[in-house]
Amino acid sequence: MTESAPYESLLSHQARTATSSVIRDLLRHANRPDVISLAGGIPAPALFPLERIGRASELALQEVGATAAQYGLTEGVEELRELFAADASSDSPAHPGQILVTTGSQQAIDLVGRVLVDPGDPIVVDDPAYLGALQALRGHSPDIVGIGVDDQGLDTVELEAKLRSGLRPKLVYTNPNFQNPTGATMPAARREHLASLADEFGFVIVEDDPYGALRFSGDPQPSIAAFSERVIRIRTVSKTLAPGLRVAWMISPQPIHDALVIAKQAVDLHTSTYAQHTALRLLRDRQWYAEHEKTLSPWYLERRDALSEGLHSAFGDDLVFNSPEGGMFLWAEMKGAKIDTTALLDVALENGVAFVPGSAFAVERELPNHLRLSFATASPSELREAAVRLAAAVQGLRGSHVQ
Amino acid sequence: MTESAPYESLLSHQARTATSSVIRDLLRHANRPDVISLAGGIPAPALFPLERIGRASELALQEVGATAAQYGLTEGVEELRELFAADASSDSPAHPGQILVTTGSQQAIDLVGRVLVDPGDPIVVDDPAYLGALQALRGHSPDIVGIGVDDQGLDTVELEAKLRSGLRPKLVYTNPNFQNPTGATMPAARREHLASLADEFGFVIVEDDPYGALRFSGDPQPSIAAFSERVIRIRTVSKTLAPGLRVAWMISPQPIHDALVIAKQAVDLHTSTYAQHTALRLLRDRQWYAEHEKTLSPWYLERRDALSEGLHSAFGDDLVFNSPEGGMFLWAEMKGAKIDTTALLDVALENGVAFVPGSAFAVERELPNHLRLSFATASPSELREAAVRLAAAVQGLRGSHVQ
Repeated sequence: MTESAPYESLLSHQARTATSSVIRDLLRHANRPDVISLAGGIPAPALFPLERIGRASELALQEVGATAAQYGLTEGVEELRELFAADASSDSPAHPGQILVTTGSQQAIDLVGRVLVDPGDPIVVDDPAYLGALQALRGHSPDIVGIGVDDQGLDTVELEAKLRSGLRPKLVYTNPNFQNPTGATMPAARREHLASLADEFGFVIVEDDPYGALRFSGDPQPSIAAFSERVIRIRTVSKTLAPGLRVAWMISPQPIHDALVIAKQAVDLHTSTYAQHTALRLLRDRQWYAEHEKTLSPWYLERRDALSEGLHSAFGDDLVFNSPEGGMFLWAEMKGAKIDTTALLDVALENGVAFVPGSAFAVERELPNHLRLSFATASPSELREAAVRLAAAVQGLRGSHVQ
Repeated sequence: MTESAPYESLLSHQARTATSSVIRDLLRHANRPDVISLAGGIPAPALFPLERIGRASELALQEVGATAAQYGLTEGVEELRELFAADASSDSPAHPGQILVTTGSQQAIDLVGRVLVDPGDPIVVDDPAYLGALQALRGHSPDIVGIGVDDQGLDTVELEAKLRSGLRPKLVYTNPNFQNPTGATMPAARREHLASLADEFGFVIVEDDPYGALRFSGDPQPSIAAFSERVIRIRTVSKTLAPGLRVAWMISPQPIHDALVIAKQAVDLHTSTYAQHTALRLLRDRQWYAEHEKTLSPWYLERRDALSEGLHSAFGDDLVFNSPEGGMFLWAEMKGAKIDTTALLDVALENGVAFVPGSAFAVERELPNHLRLSFATASPSELREAAVRLAAAVQGLRGSHVQ
């Protein structure tokens, strides 16, 4: 396009260097009807309480009339913030004045970047990390340090060593429950260790917990906020009600909360009052919501098991993967003759299966042989078939290498 | 608060320097039941098609099921983008691939700042300007140049002189229709002049038009996009359906659009699919929507006239104000013995009337004697009473000065 040059010279540094999410670009292919997608990070649409959502909107319009469709306070709908405050666990209480309703968790992470990060500031993230968080945080040009994730989440011993060697991050971003992409959950003792490091070294922990309600087994772990005040908690209805509402919330120490509110006012005034009033009426029906929430984890557990069985049958010992206690992802690694999973993806799509290569989530580590496999949306039989197709893709790729 | 110091040292430069909107802070007082508010920039809730909104959501859930509540494409719901493209006027056509659905116009302005502005870049805005735009743009640390607004909008002769003297802005932000705060509308010839300057000097025009549908009299003017390709058009349903949906859209030159999509992906993934599918079903019923739209401007016209009459009776020649052809605001100036309208506001609130002082919108100009008076939400009799209270407040302030 000949006209594009003069526009490109107008683009900001950020616009010239930002790149689209690999996952998003992938999803365009993964949406082909002949492809079983293990690539998306989206919840199962069958679990959305559609009829209830419609009724909740209707009820909101009846109860508060035009208020449900008018401009609102930047902080969010007051009754909803009160409900979120009441929902904070007793070991880490919150009051409504610390709560900001956001347009999805994605906005919460971007706002954290806006109010805490100046270009070049060091920050720490899980490595590998949730790709959307990397995108949001990179928009503020930090110096990103990745700290390894093992089967107990972010490795706080590695973090402590770097802190003792002089690293002074403004924040540490982590998914403590069923981490995206590894599925790892941080035990209470490690949370307490991380919290003590925040208190000692003066950083803020950004605890992003979208999957907490999707627990299959094991005991719920306390929020990191139970061990330190220096925690920003990010929560969402995206995996429990429906992501299309774009309703999430964040609980922050007061001075940070105050800065977040001013930042949010500049970026979108406030989150849809219509969506907030709708979510409120779903959540405040405690009995219905408790029943609804109970339907979520059995769905995902059945699929985790179907995919695990399928992978065991199809790969034997060639593929090593974990068994997460909740969430939507298996994290797998090709063993034996090493396979580059980025190269594998092309062949896999030809074979009718999609996944996300580990390299997409890598920060500093090399993860050439890893795969993130979502079991959230396919049926159990599709998941078993996906495992067969994936194994065939590996055979195909190995065959082509031999040639 | 003793704990706040360690957090404040973590805040970014932007967070330490950003301030809350004067209008927002004001609205807290203006919401007192004894105050008639001419301060807000909010549309009349009586005009929101509440029953239709509820039915549109219901219909969306019936028609597309979980798709109305699932994650969606960053660009927006395809059918909605097609409808917006079809709605672009024939003198400045648009195709869906140029259209990005945003979480209100506020987000569109912030995204423009993200993709076009590096710190210190010169940009031009109306002076006085829409306060929300100033907030959003200031978030990107530009060097803001205000160009005067007269009764025909942004003064393109003043702009041309500055351009010929070496000013090289990346963008010019303007409300061409019923400008906020002055109510001024830019005639076609001036739009064409502005467009020719964009083509000659290589900047982009950001045409933010929230009020276009609220025209009382005079002929609709062409979009500036009719005269140049270098225009980003920002449109919204906030003043025609309801602002609580947070559905707006922007039509941009392709290379800028592509950068905007990547930026939006990082900040909130996408605008609420539920709100988009709801808005779509309201807008696509062309016959209903045409009838609905016809009800809007008579409402505002009746109120413009009531406030104008009230001010004439109460002030005589002491207050000079315009008669806008549309929108929601009168722009007024105290004549005779000069009154500082910021000082007046305190007394006015005591007298039970709120407005926004001109200084709140000032960029480089001094506007100590101006007031923005919204006639959008009060009843005609309240508006006449508001004029009486405002005149009493002026008397009160003058009296206190004499003492």
